Amino acid sequence: MEIYPVIMAGGSGTRFWPASRTHLPKQFLNIFGSKTMIEQTIERVTPLTGEEKIIIVGNVVHHELLEKIRGPKRYVLLEEPFGRNTAPCIGLAAVYLRKRGVISEPLAVLPADHFIADEKRFLGILSMAGRLAAEGSIVTIGIVPSRPETGYGYLKKGAVRYQKEGVDICEIKRFVEKPGGDEALAYVKSGDYLWNSGIFVMTPETILKEIQVHLPEVYEGLLEIEQGLGEKNEREILRSAYENFPSISIDYGIMEKTDHPILVLPGDFGWSDVGSWGSLYGLRKTEADDHGNVVQGEGMLFETDSCFVFNVASKMVAGVGLKGLVIVNTDDALLVADMKRSQDIKNVIEALRQKGLDTVL
Amino acid sequence: MEIYPVIMAGGSGTRFWPASRTHLPKQFLNIFGSKTMIEQTIERVTPLTGEEKIIIVGNVVHHELLEKIRGPKRYVLLEEPFGRNTAPCIGLAAVYLRKRGVISEPLAVLPADHFIADEKRFLGILSMAGRLAAEGSIVTIGIVPSRPETGYGYLKKGAVRYQKEGVDICEIKRFVEKPGGDEALAYVKSGDYLWNSGIFVMTPETILKEIQVHLPEVYEGLLEIEQGLGEKNEREILRSAYENFPSISIDYGIMEKTDHPILVLPGDFGWSDVGSWGSLYGLRKTEADDHGNVVQGEGMLFETDSCFVFNVASKMVAGVGLKGLVIVNTDDALLVADMKRSQDIKNVIEALRQKGLDTVL
Repeated sequence: MEIYPVIMAGGSGTRFWPASRTHLPKQFLNIFGSKTMIEQTIERVTPLTGEEKIIIVGNVVHHELLEKIRGPKRYVLLEEPFGRNTAPCIGLAAVYLRKRGVISEPLAVLPADHFIADEKRFLGILSMAGRLAAEGSIVTIGIVPSRPETGYGYLKKGAVRYQKEGVDICEIKRFVEKPGGDEALAYVKSGDYLWNSGIFVMTPETILKEIQVHLPEVYEGLLEIEQGLGEKNEREILRSAYENFPSISIDYGIMEKTDHPILVLPGDFGWSDVGSWGSLYGLRKTEADDHGNVVQGEGMLFETDSCFVFNVASKMVAGVGLKGLVIVNTDDALLVADMKRSQDIKNVIEALRQKGLDTVL
Repeated sequence: MEIYPVIMAGGSGTRFWPASRTHLPKQFLNIFGSKTMIEQTIERVTPLTGEEKIIIVGNVVHHELLEKIRGPKRYVLLEEPFGRNTAPCIGLAAVYLRKRGVISEPLAVLPADHFIADEKRFLGILSMAGRLAAEGSIVTIGIVPSRPETGYGYLKKGAVRYQKEGVDICEIKRFVEKPGGDEALAYVKSGDYLWNSGIFVMTPETILKEIQVHLPEVYEGLLEIEQGLGEKNEREILRSAYENFPSISIDYGIMEKTDHPILVLPGDFGWSDVGSWGSLYGLRKTEADDHGNVVQGEGMLFETDSCFVFNVASKMVAGVGLKGLVIVNTDDALLVADMKRSQDIKNVIEALRQKGLDTVL
């Protein structure tokens, strides 16, 4: 059995502003050091499969970045004309594979910008998911929640369906969209809920059947794309299909609605979606100095504790008497924020947009 | 009676790094908005006297900056080959004036980088000082201390000698160098001590006589300079005299030693030496928004209180959830500091120097 990793790289987040930009979203940043997150994602799955089996689905506006990351490798690059959330993205990869004759071998949908600590364990779980998917299941990976996070979707676990290699494989009773704070707290306390990691494993056959049933208008467009792939007018066909696609997630469009059994495997490999500067600082704390400071780039700190300096500008950054701040310095914008408030960057983005300062976005 | 303002502009501080640099010290910065401190100092004394009577003593390394500030005006520019503290600087102005035939008219020594709130009151006090100086006194201006500052010299007041226009004019018992914390506290509590503002008024005749007595080797060099002023080899003569000058302040070299009566006038015009970013922020608080933030240049603050953003780079500065910080952003260096620690910038300077990063100093 072969697994086809489908790396979803079309996102355009703002949470790592000013390091991330409209033209340079988080997956293309080397926020963990020397490599970009998408490169780390690719390298992580490489031991699992041949390079020509790795499929990167990106946005055409990032064409050059994507080509640069591919380099001389034989990764497949599928470029969406514009983002329509995850359902069309996964559908595109599925019809691409079906056209290549891959119907009953599993594909693994992987966000390009997540952190995974234990790569070996991750690959073990993914292989197990692949075997279950090849038997016809939709398989997802759930993370035991460590806080009442309102920024994630949740999975409600059902009964244990199998035990394999010491791993409990449960059915999923329900997909739940991002909850409010009280709900999230109740979920965490109950022990019945997991975070939805956004990782899905299933065959093209399985997922395309689901799309046909639950998102028939998407399926219709995907059929046109399937015919057009590799043709001269491929780009035009993609564009015209995508123009008619709704913007819809696989969770909302399929998973919350289907009667098809969905299994969940435990994501016990150290996972984070790296959703904010504060979260990144937490993951990089192993690099901290004696005062808990993490410094990337030129930086000198005095009487300073628990700060994160991310300096990608050709400029010296000096801090004196600081505590719990993130300082992000780029060539044309600077952010200084309380680490605990690093989610509030969206307010900055909104204000810049309203002022017409789109050049720094 | 005419007063000759002598503006001492040769200083090279580091306390406003990274806005101030070796090649751009504080007096050449527009830290109060549109004008530089030296320009503000010049304009402040202009109503008192003709422009050709204003003498600027600077360092030759700042020649271009000084020429730019003079522009088409007829200010006198005296350039020291290198700094030797205030005694040689004042001596230079005094011999320049004596050579022009000004012997018994007062000169007023004014630091180029101080803040004065009530300019009218300041000019009134300066005129009064001028009249007393013309009668042969050395006159200084003392500031009622508002805190036990250890960064200033102090003056111990003696008896009230005259009362003029409602102003008490005291003799000075003693000049005191920068005290320790306990001493400073005792001084402030006693009510007998004033801060030494560094402003002195006296005639060339008076001060040159004092220099002759207390700093004879300086006087000798000044005589050579006096002869050489306006000659072709003026620069060489200045250089050779300055090479032999000790680096010595007028306070230590003359004022602490002389038996000549020294009078003190009250500096009740709102004075600050603007010694740190924190002190500048305090002086500019009238410009603050509802949250106590002062922003010069591009800056956007969210949930932020009591911060000072000084942004002279072509870069957007955004702050989120901050309190009591100074953020100084220039094209090649950035400082983020606790406002209360803004004196500790000297540690940054020292560390940069040790690392050989003199380009950003």
